[in-house]
Amino acid sequence: MRAAYAEQLGSPDVIRYGELAAPVPGPDEVLVDVRATTVNPVDTFVRSGVFRTPLEFPFVIGRDLVGTVASAGGGFAVGDAVWCNSLGHGGRQGAAAEQAVVPVDRLYRLPPGVAPETAVAVVHPAATAYLALFTHGGLCPGETVLVAGAAGNVGAALVVLAVRAGARVIATAAARDHDYCRSLGAAEVVDYRDPDLTRRLAELAPAGVDVHVDTSGRNDLTSAVALLAHRGRIVLLAGAKDEPVLPVGPLYMKDASVRGFAISHATPSELASAATSINDLLSRGLLRPRAMEPLPLSTAADVHHRMERGELHGKRVVLHTGS
Amino acid sequence: MRAAYAEQLGSPDVIRYGELAAPVPGPDEVLVDVRATTVNPVDTFVRSGVFRTPLEFPFVIGRDLVGTVASAGGGFAVGDAVWCNSLGHGGRQGAAAEQAVVPVDRLYRLPPGVAPETAVAVVHPAATAYLALFTHGGLCPGETVLVAGAAGNVGAALVVLAVRAGARVIATAAARDHDYCRSLGAAEVVDYRDPDLTRRLAELAPAGVDVHVDTSGRNDLTSAVALLAHRGRIVLLAGAKDEPVLPVGPLYMKDASVRGFAISHATPSELASAATSINDLLSRGLLRPRAMEPLPLSTAADVHHRMERGELHGKRVVLHTGS
Repeated sequence: MRAAYAEQLGSPDVIRYGELAAPVPGPDEVLVDVRATTVNPVDTFVRSGVFRTPLEFPFVIGRDLVGTVASAGGGFAVGDAVWCNSLGHGGRQGAAAEQAVVPVDRLYRLPPGVAPETAVAVVHPAATAYLALFTHGGLCPGETVLVAGAAGNVGAALVVLAVRAGARVIATAAARDHDYCRSLGAAEVVDYRDPDLTRRLAELAPAGVDVHVDTSGRNDLTSAVALLAHRGRIVLLAGAKDEPVLPVGPLYMKDASVRGFAISHATPSELASAATSINDLLSRGLLRPRAMEPLPLSTAADVHHRMERGELHGKRVVLHTGS
Repeated sequence: MRAAYAEQLGSPDVIRYGELAAPVPGPDEVLVDVRATTVNPVDTFVRSGVFRTPLEFPFVIGRDLVGTVASAGGGFAVGDAVWCNSLGHGGRQGAAAEQAVVPVDRLYRLPPGVAPETAVAVVHPAATAYLALFTHGGLCPGETVLVAGAAGNVGAALVVLAVRAGARVIATAAARDHDYCRSLGAAEVVDYRDPDLTRRLAELAPAGVDVHVDTSGRNDLTSAVALLAHRGRIVLLAGAKDEPVLPVGPLYMKDASVRGFAISHATPSELASAATSINDLLSRGLLRPRAMEPLPLSTAADVHHRMERGELHGKRVVLHTGS
């Protein structure tokens, strides 16, 4: 089969495109004919070695796939439309190939009527958003969520999932993205460059923010703690090199918390919960990438280069296997 | 009745000792003949106004009491031995009087055979420890707990409660307190002044620390995060003015969290859970103050002075009403 793979960790140039032996499913695994994959920031961290995770060479890159079942197993029949968003780390080979082996507890059905390209473009950012809001953020209906950096891929998914869960969403974004954020369901949108940002957000959340998620990696914890409601939660998921000050007293006097997570650590059960929510939103047409660029799988190395140069901001590349 | 009370917030000198009208219980409240109360650091914060909480003047000070029921109600009969650890804040009058009114959902039975003085000396630090470990820290049996500052009142309770819950406890304390910490059940004790403290602790917890509690208010979050296990929790409860750096990437790459709380925000249900655990430990003779000093209630102002001068470290004053 044709695959995008690496023989060693390193720059995007380590990615080869060529023939590899097709994988053979073991017990509790399913062979999938891959229709398309995509590239996430975390895929570049795995490829470069910045994110350390068990893997074997030749290592097929890529975390997400959409495709059809090629060998029945685990309740799946040949031809079933499926997706996965947790390959390519933790000892599992990746998705960027004509065929991939997927553990049955990491494989989900693609709902009828959902375009495979739409699904593969959103399942990673949407699962990240789900884990942030629910698994780690403990979001409840009626709560107020602040999404800082709401116009990006994860930010948009945070807005959509929080609104669908019955939360009121306050978003920050560049002025040009305010209409987009409102179209996703944000009740309020504030320019993140507003010099009075914290005061304006406080006015919009007079009872405080229950869940605060910053996708931008700015992680101004002093402002975030000040904005929190009693028992509010700040969820950290970006800004790996940040070392902000944490005001201890203001945090504990609110019974508040700061909760970090990396999607790569999510359990199959947590990912399956996310998948249920994502499939509901996909079925309703509520989860869509803002912009998509279809490309052949052979361009994977170039897409990694472009992502690392910051050229894909807000755009999702869909890599087709051609199979 | 005789009471220790204040007509205004301020220094310990605002505390008067004299006659006040006895309180009258409302619905779902019980009148208690108070045998003894104590003084906690938080009582000085309420008195000074540093901790803002609703209260009415003349304000009877004090959070904890042990005594006997004076008027039946809520399943309690006259003469029942009882205790409470949540008076004197949140609109409730305090415990430092010959009689006090206690909401029935904040009143707990004193187990048979437990000395009232022992109980009143430990119920506040032990409830703080319970909330830190379980309500906010989510401690599970078999986990590793690091108690920094284990020889103090809250520290000792943390060790005892964690060990009783089936956790392995690593303690830090001054060298002179190591035997005491071991007598409480700590598996390992390290001198907190060891220049290689973090490395030594890491060696003692090779799989990482699951729950990290620092009673000293040092709050070195860089070391704390480095010591954490996957999905470890740092619980913040002291050091109100600290502003340590929080290393964002190391935190979220471990799915770790920082959780703050103030006991004054605990719900009646959370306090009742703590009380059940505390009564179990009291019955077994496992919760005891390290040192007690009995004094008459009339000395309350002096005790507040001594606490603020740091003269009561590790010693619990028991203030007797004489009734």
